Amino acid sequence: METVRVKLLTVIAESFLEERLIGLLRRCGARGYTVAEVRGEGSRGVRASEWEGKNVRLESLLSNEAAARVLAALEREFFAHYAVVAYTQEVEVVRGDKYV
Amino acid sequence: METVRVKLLTVIAESFLEERLIGLLRRCGARGYTVAEVRGEGSRGVRASEWEGKNVRLESLLSNEAAARVLAALEREFFAHYAVVAYTQEVEVVRGDKYV
Amino acid sequence: METVRVKLLTVIAESFLEERLIGLLRRCGARGYTVAEVRGEGSRGVRASEWEGKNVRLESLLSNEAAARVLAALEREFFAHYAVVAYTQEVEVVRGDKYV
Repeated sequence: METVRVKLLTVIAESFLEERLIGLLRRCGARGYTVAEVRGEGSRGVRASEWEGKNVRLESLLSNEAAARVLAALEREFFAHYAVVAYTQEVEVVRGDKYV
Repeated sequence: METVRVKLLTVIAESFLEERLIGLLRRCGARGYTVAEVRGEGSRGVRASEWEGKNVRLESLLSNEAAARVLAALEREFFAHYAVVAYTQEVEVVRGDKYV
Repeated sequence: METVRVKLLTVIAESFLEERLIGLLRRCGARGYTVAEVRGEGSRGVRASEWEGKNVRLESLLSNEAAARVLAALEREFFAHYAVVAYTQEVEVVRGDKYV
């Protein structure tokens, strides 16, 4: 089975940011995404909506270049204002030519 | 704390495929799995049910051999017909002897 | 974009253990966590509540030291009694100074 190494980006943010985050992913070249509804609590005392509550967990498989664009855009547009967590991992994906 | 390095397999697919995918995991030697209900959108225009909608995200901890069997079976039985995403990562698991 | 390499810990357990697991994470130094409701089935025949059912999937970004403390505490307090799965991965996190 041939696999391709790509970046899995995970973003956790307050639910009301979902649409804006999906727009950002698209602009940066994401070909798809998955959203899960989660709950959580973070290290920042201030949140835009409520202190502890409904979050979304977005995941997207990205080329290295697209992942870098997403992280830069998140920093520019979100990190100063919202309690957003973002991290990347390398994964081996089947039919990976769709993502790079 | 002793840990064992195993494969974490993630499969994202339309919800109606859940039972068939769980059957595939079992046949290939999975000892357990986790299912989360997610939403998403992918790079394929055609979906069996609706364009954008309810998906499941299945995760399973597997030996390298079982992971290879699962990916081969997914390719044989699913990839030509359905919008299935599958990727693997290496994780360090506690009580990992259960998985290998 | 500067990132920091930290541990992503995932714990999957029966739902009624959620509060106790969050307490354990806090005690061990976690600065935040995410909870998703999931379903699943594991390799242990005996579960405290029901055989197959509602689980939670907790995730937390941790320093290596905090991750080791969490795994040791899980072993001491949970593994003998409950069907708990725990694994760690390395991830590259933005604004990672919050976690280490």
